[in-house]
Amino acid sequence: MADSEALPSLAGDPVAVEALLRAVFGVVVDEAIQKGTSVSQKVCEWKEPEELKQLLDLELRSQGESQEQILERCRAVIRYSVKTGHPRFFNQLFSGLDPHALAGRIITESLNTSQYTYEIAPVFVLMEEEVLRKLRALVGWSSGDGIFCPGGSISNMYAVNLARYQRYPDCKQRGLRTLPPLALFTSKECHYSIQKGAAFLGLGTDSVRVVKADERGKMVPEDLERQIGMAEAEGAVPFLVSATSGTTVLGAFDPLEAIADVCQRHGLWLHVDAAWGGSVLLSQTHRHLLDGIQRADSVAWNPHKLLAAGLQCSALLLQDTSNLLKRCHGSQASYLFQQDKFYDVALDTGDKVVQCGRRVDCLKLWLMWKAQGDQGLERRIDQAFVLARYLVEEMKKREGFELVMEPEFVNVCFWFVPPSLRGKQESPDYQERLSKVAPVLKERMVKEGSMMIGYQPHGTRGNFFRVVVANSALTCADMDFLLNELERLGQDL
Amino acid sequence: MADSEALPSLAGDPVAVEALLRAVFGVVVDEAIQKGTSVSQKVCEWKEPEELKQLLDLELRSQGESQEQILERCRAVIRYSVKTGHPRFFNQLFSGLDPHALAGRIITESLNTSQYTYEIAPVFVLMEEEVLRKLRALVGWSSGDGIFCPGGSISNMYAVNLARYQRYPDCKQRGLRTLPPLALFTSKECHYSIQKGAAFLGLGTDSVRVVKADERGKMVPEDLERQIGMAEAEGAVPFLVSATSGTTVLGAFDPLEAIADVCQRHGLWLHVDAAWGGSVLLSQTHRHLLDGIQRADSVAWNPHKLLAAGLQCSALLLQDTSNLLKRCHGSQASYLFQQDKFYDVALDTGDKVVQCGRRVDCLKLWLMWKAQGDQGLERRIDQAFVLARYLVEEMKKREGFELVMEPEFVNVCFWFVPPSLRGKQESPDYQERLSKVAPVLKERMVKEGSMMIGYQPHGTRGNFFRVVVANSALTCADMDFLLNELERLGQDL
Repeated sequence: MADSEALPSLAGDPVAVEALLRAVFGVVVDEAIQKGTSVSQKVCEWKEPEELKQLLDLELRSQGESQEQILERCRAVIRYSVKTGHPRFFNQLFSGLDPHALAGRIITESLNTSQYTYEIAPVFVLMEEEVLRKLRALVGWSSGDGIFCPGGSISNMYAVNLARYQRYPDCKQRGLRTLPPLALFTSKECHYSIQKGAAFLGLGTDSVRVVKADERGKMVPEDLERQIGMAEAEGAVPFLVSATSGTTVLGAFDPLEAIADVCQRHGLWLHVDAAWGGSVLLSQTHRHLLDGIQRADSVAWNPHKLLAAGLQCSALLLQDTSNLLKRCHGSQASYLFQQDKFYDVALDTGDKVVQCGRRVDCLKLWLMWKAQGDQGLERRIDQAFVLARYLVEEMKKREGFELVMEPEFVNVCFWFVPPSLRGKQESPDYQERLSKVAPVLKERMVKEGSMMIGYQPHGTRGNFFRVVVANSALTCADMDFLLNELERLGQDL
Repeated sequence: MADSEALPSLAGDPVAVEALLRAVFGVVVDEAIQKGTSVSQKVCEWKEPEELKQLLDLELRSQGESQEQILERCRAVIRYSVKTGHPRFFNQLFSGLDPHALAGRIITESLNTSQYTYEIAPVFVLMEEEVLRKLRALVGWSSGDGIFCPGGSISNMYAVNLARYQRYPDCKQRGLRTLPPLALFTSKECHYSIQKGAAFLGLGTDSVRVVKADERGKMVPEDLERQIGMAEAEGAVPFLVSATSGTTVLGAFDPLEAIADVCQRHGLWLHVDAAWGGSVLLSQTHRHLLDGIQRADSVAWNPHKLLAAGLQCSALLLQDTSNLLKRCHGSQASYLFQQDKFYDVALDTGDKVVQCGRRVDCLKLWLMWKAQGDQGLERRIDQAFVLARYLVEEMKKREGFELVMEPEFVNVCFWFVPPSLRGKQESPDYQERLSKVAPVLKERMVKEGSMMIGYQPHGTRGNFFRVVVANSALTCADMDFLLNELERLGQDL
């Protein structure tokens, strides 16, 4: 068959390359960007895994395919993918499609370089430095260091590794065996990456001491103090506290001033996991939620979340000016970081990280920021708070919605109480029946493709929905739709 | 000034979004793709850092910018960036611009999802599984596990973490303090990520025992055996050997069969860092270089290198079928990996990794593979070997070139001996003077923008060039150019 014959390589045929890429880009614009962000279109096109495998024809074969087939494959990939840029995608801590950030990502991919040396990434070495400087200024630091990491989990791990290295520089060479048992502190609402990081870094999950959170999800500084005392009494050496600005489920902000006081008293490294909440620093109105962050030693901040810069864009920021990052992670590989280069090798950032090749994650954020300015980004953050508040107030007017708590951020957590459960709060099986509602509604919304909202159990609370109001294209009409749609989907329950 | 006013947000204006993206894409096609891969254009446009900062105007300001200004910024970013897709980019272990892979990357960026759940990445969960299955089949495994990681360094770290967890499952919870000292083995030619990983994972660099390599850069199995005995005699517990298929500088392949025999005798985990050389498995002619790889427990393989899939694309492959990856890294976060979902939650791969959000790295490779077929990719690999051989033979015909050794892969290592040093091999300062040649030529080629070749010192050898023959657009004419250009640039030395 003609169409199963291998396509001649496009290498060396610029006309064919351009034609292919323009055709693919046309599909992307129509299907992923226009339809993918239109409320008249579905947010997802659910297929069971076995059916989807058939539809995608995933197998990689000996023969190549024609350009026509490849274009059809591009269409299918987009068709069956979830549209995270869609205004009805409320499912994760990111949503929306910023055109300037996307433009930055397309340029990044077309240039396809690695961020390790000025030699092959001159623009991006300087740009990363400038973007990090800007983020640090928003934290409140006029100097410092930092690096973009492959996601917030690894940014958090870096902070833990830097804190232990600062205290025990020998551990880089000699490992943990010769050290006393170490203890780090974080609240029970922290992101799971702290536990994962402790295991990966060889500290073990037992080294993570879980501090109480109050009913709003904020770390209790008195319990932190108590836990530090307990760890010391057990012979462990406290070295780091990881506070959270914007917890994953409830969107809570830990009281950083009080926590910084505790850290100062005990000489502990203060890390702030602001992966989710960091972008609030752009808002004059709401940045008080992070008061005290300038006292941190390190901050993790993911502009790929609330700012929609695009996965991945995660900055680790440091107050340190002693080159700790390079001392801790460096290995001085002579094949990459030659010392007899004809430019200042301090520009080669590659030895600050535990990776070798490192993606360019700064351009998408920089270009978006250039287009929007601080002011444009601030408006987005403020607007998200306004819409979250609108959603909450509208919920209060409807009988089927029960808030988990008044949100202080853009995570709106609530139960949808279906008609059959209303007024039955006193029934012995109420909680059990209520916790089964969200999974059923989730299945229905996904199969209809009308919207996507996450749910989860949380502590002693049964499954509840968490709407994340992050997409900058959202309006009050989308909030009304969300409420109406939940009522429609749950009317027979 | 009108043009310094903030641009109204594009959110909610699909026509403006499309116009912007089409304009940016036009710039990308013209500047990055067409000019960026044309030998009539420069491979780089060198600027001193201070001058480049001025040219780029990096500062992020309060006010946003007009679309015209943004487009000019896109042009400047591309203009001053290194063109890694250019045929004269010989500088790293990646080069070239595959249009299908780029198409896959653009789609990935436009869909902007995270690989952690089937719920929000149905296509890519299934696709990753299929791509990993294909890579495993090339290794020689009919079953197993695997995951795409943010680069080869982290793939290597995963292998080390999995090996220690398999031997000491308690270490996930209790850490390394309660364990005996551990020892892992790799050759002195291994990638620096093994050292970095040992430090990061809390083992310490002392836990890395450096095994001798022969004059071709291959690990000496007899010395491995000896080092294992020495480590045991010192009270350490050997647990892993990391062999390399395609070393960074020399492109050497460790003798995997002999190393696997040693591992088998001592019950050690065999990891093969085939980040660079793994793609040779596609070539029937050359895959013998990796004979024995099917006996490994884990393999790291970066299709972003020789296959030019685009940064990043790094697979960690495992022979394990006991769900080791998930047991070792999992934390069962209830907010993301709910167990009462309406589909099989075994499809949620997020708990296999230490990251939370994870980029989609499979589409670019899958789409390129669909377009090329095994056959097309095999031709590329074979062609790279042919051209590397051509380069070597042409060097032998010219008096100014001295090979470091006969290459067995596509790394061609050599000294350029300038006219003033020819025939002076016996001078006492010959080596010292020779080692100063490469940095000078490097500066000249970069400042002219004619080509980019890496150099490094290596053991007792002074600086020599390493040409990486990886770009699938290369021809013999490019090899001739390279030799002529070195002669031209070095004629006065």
